[in-house]
Amino acid sequence: MKKSPLAPDSFPELPIIKGVQFATGQTGIKYIDREDIMLAKLSPETTISGVFTSSTMRSASVLDCQSKIGLGTEQGAAILVNAGNANAFTGSDGQASVNRICEALSLKLGLPSSAIFTSSTGVIGEILPDHKITNCIDDLKNTLHDGSIENAAKAIMTTDTFSKGSSATLDIDGKRVSISGIAKGSGMIAPDMATMLVYIFTDAKIGQINLQKLLIKLNNRTFNCITVDSDTSTSDSLICAATGASGVDVSKSSRFSKSLEKVMLDLAQQVVRDGEGATKFITVNVAGAASNKDAHKVAMAIANSPLVKTAIAGEDPNWGRVVMAVGKSGAVANRDHLSIWFGSHLVAERGQVAKNYKEASTAKYMKQSALSIHVDLGIGSSFSTVWTCDLTNDYVKINADYRS
Amino acid sequence: MKKSPLAPDSFPELPIIKGVQFATGQTGIKYIDREDIMLAKLSPETTISGVFTSSTMRSASVLDCQSKIGLGTEQGAAILVNAGNANAFTGSDGQASVNRICEALSLKLGLPSSAIFTSSTGVIGEILPDHKITNCIDDLKNTLHDGSIENAAKAIMTTDTFSKGSSATLDIDGKRVSISGIAKGSGMIAPDMATMLVYIFTDAKIGQINLQKLLIKLNNRTFNCITVDSDTSTSDSLICAATGASGVDVSKSSRFSKSLEKVMLDLAQQVVRDGEGATKFITVNVAGAASNKDAHKVAMAIANSPLVKTAIAGEDPNWGRVVMAVGKSGAVANRDHLSIWFGSHLVAERGQVAKNYKEASTAKYMKQSALSIHVDLGIGSSFSTVWTCDLTNDYVKINADYRS
Repeated sequence: MKKSPLAPDSFPELPIIKGVQFATGQTGIKYIDREDIMLAKLSPETTISGVFTSSTMRSASVLDCQSKIGLGTEQGAAILVNAGNANAFTGSDGQASVNRICEALSLKLGLPSSAIFTSSTGVIGEILPDHKITNCIDDLKNTLHDGSIENAAKAIMTTDTFSKGSSATLDIDGKRVSISGIAKGSGMIAPDMATMLVYIFTDAKIGQINLQKLLIKLNNRTFNCITVDSDTSTSDSLICAATGASGVDVSKSSRFSKSLEKVMLDLAQQVVRDGEGATKFITVNVAGAASNKDAHKVAMAIANSPLVKTAIAGEDPNWGRVVMAVGKSGAVANRDHLSIWFGSHLVAERGQVAKNYKEASTAKYMKQSALSIHVDLGIGSSFSTVWTCDLTNDYVKINADYRS
Repeated sequence: MKKSPLAPDSFPELPIIKGVQFATGQTGIKYIDREDIMLAKLSPETTISGVFTSSTMRSASVLDCQSKIGLGTEQGAAILVNAGNANAFTGSDGQASVNRICEALSLKLGLPSSAIFTSSTGVIGEILPDHKITNCIDDLKNTLHDGSIENAAKAIMTTDTFSKGSSATLDIDGKRVSISGIAKGSGMIAPDMATMLVYIFTDAKIGQINLQKLLIKLNNRTFNCITVDSDTSTSDSLICAATGASGVDVSKSSRFSKSLEKVMLDLAQQVVRDGEGATKFITVNVAGAASNKDAHKVAMAIANSPLVKTAIAGEDPNWGRVVMAVGKSGAVANRDHLSIWFGSHLVAERGQVAKNYKEASTAKYMKQSALSIHVDLGIGSSFSTVWTCDLTNDYVKINADYRS
């Protein structure tokens, strides 16, 4: 698979987080000649929070993680992720696989099974050959070391065309606090309460409940505001681990919250930039809505519309389709108060095409790879921003061929 | 545009409806060398009912029709439809265009303006050059005659690759009652309260209010159960005219209701068969739901999922994506009660892949052009059926190029 044209130039330098060690390996479950499993081991007193997909068909790993979040990780914790098999819709066999993996890791790492979190990503409905994972545990344990987060980001990829990482550092009371995160995701992206697979590590000190609250709040502004194809995965998981190794308590730090949000938003946008077949990165801003819910509804109706997304793929400033999407969204809207901009080009206002609208200059704007659509409903003061990509022949090609 | 591979062999023979006369013409608004306008003139005492899009951005014609339905058509009525320009999001100019067209027709046909219904379909946001329509009215009036419904069906097409007609006849108390309908639609199809453009004519005798109630009921089982691309048009209109010329009162006839439903369902399915780029006609049945609303939600989540639709385009029995769509639908569902069939092939049950599932034979089934997906939620007794098509490269191609 060719690298997305919207990919960043390279994987960023991520700060090493004290208290976290990584290892990666090859299980041979689906992929040949590449690493497909990663282990993160977390020091004692690390706190772990997570948000997960709200799909009623969530995978065995997701159900297992949800049952463990908040049980306590005083002795330390571990996160194990495999790519190529989602272990979703695998019935009671799926849970049995998760149990066997957690038991084996528990034994080798000397941690309670309740402090071991797993994620699986890949094809839905195939039984997970968990022995191929447990066979790797010795090797993973023996190669654990600081600073191999880039390999971890690579090992969790499926249809991704580039590995995704982001970081932030900030100084609080003269001490350095660092955040490093990785993500995977490319298709089946319309997170709801959570997202694809995302792992964020920090040496900040913060209690589990405070971290959980913060994660839920920031998730609603970041991963819940992206969509590639309106399809919500059965495996979406976002896990954040705070080792506390910096000694800096960030429970009440708005600067930490902002830094964490920056990392989350960067990772979320990287997932959009790797949207299957994507050639355009699109920011959809909706303002002037009657409520936040309405603003988000309109933004998502635009971002998920196949007709808007194909028009953008064709570099056509077809703003009539944006009108259509506003109209079908279910939000309160009034034709005569609606305004639409493509970038800085006002295309429609007061119920019709803008007086000075110039198709030629707007069409030229559409050739850029990063585009913004701004909609003002002209009714209230609520707003929302979401990020998406275009819908191209390559999306169809990738997804008509995925399993074969 | 090549004719859809799912098209019927030919346009059907439709019975002539006494009390209806048709004419067609060329306005030159968008298309060259083809008819793009149709006029239907209805005899005195015809009753007219209609259902329309619930989009908040509905077109000037739709708003005008909605204001007129039920006002009375004792002196007769007329329906005028143009293709190539939707007259949607054209502000007060749009309504002025509709007014001028209705006034001109009113004068020429000797009918009150309130008995004249118009529809426009095509590009959104461009001012309708209504003089090109009013210039045609003399010609249209002079060529009105019975039996040219096939030309009318052709004149209202936009991206359609074939014209759509359907009919039914039934004998009640020794007298013949006939129904003839036409439709257009191919993309921007996810009707909500109504549909694309559909005109149904019958010589049955039925009061306006009874016809309206019947239309709403049948619409919920036919046009509201299809989707091509989840995008709802600003122009959806279904108008039914009953001339009463047969002298048969059908107000309480369940046989008439069934015949009308058959015509509506046939037209709705023809729209799906002409779905932009479609190569597969897909019936999605959902049973065992906790409520009718849940059943419809699940069926539409499957039918609208880009990942399900692209898998089917690739003839891949990727039932994991059906699981995903059930999971994201928002309906009550339980992994361990869910069963999924592709045609007669049971693929998943009790939370995992079916014991005797054979990928090879199911993959062979997927090569058919008409496919069914059956989902049993195993929870309640409510069910729903919807119809859709696959998502192909050609859908993207058609919609990335539409205006240019």
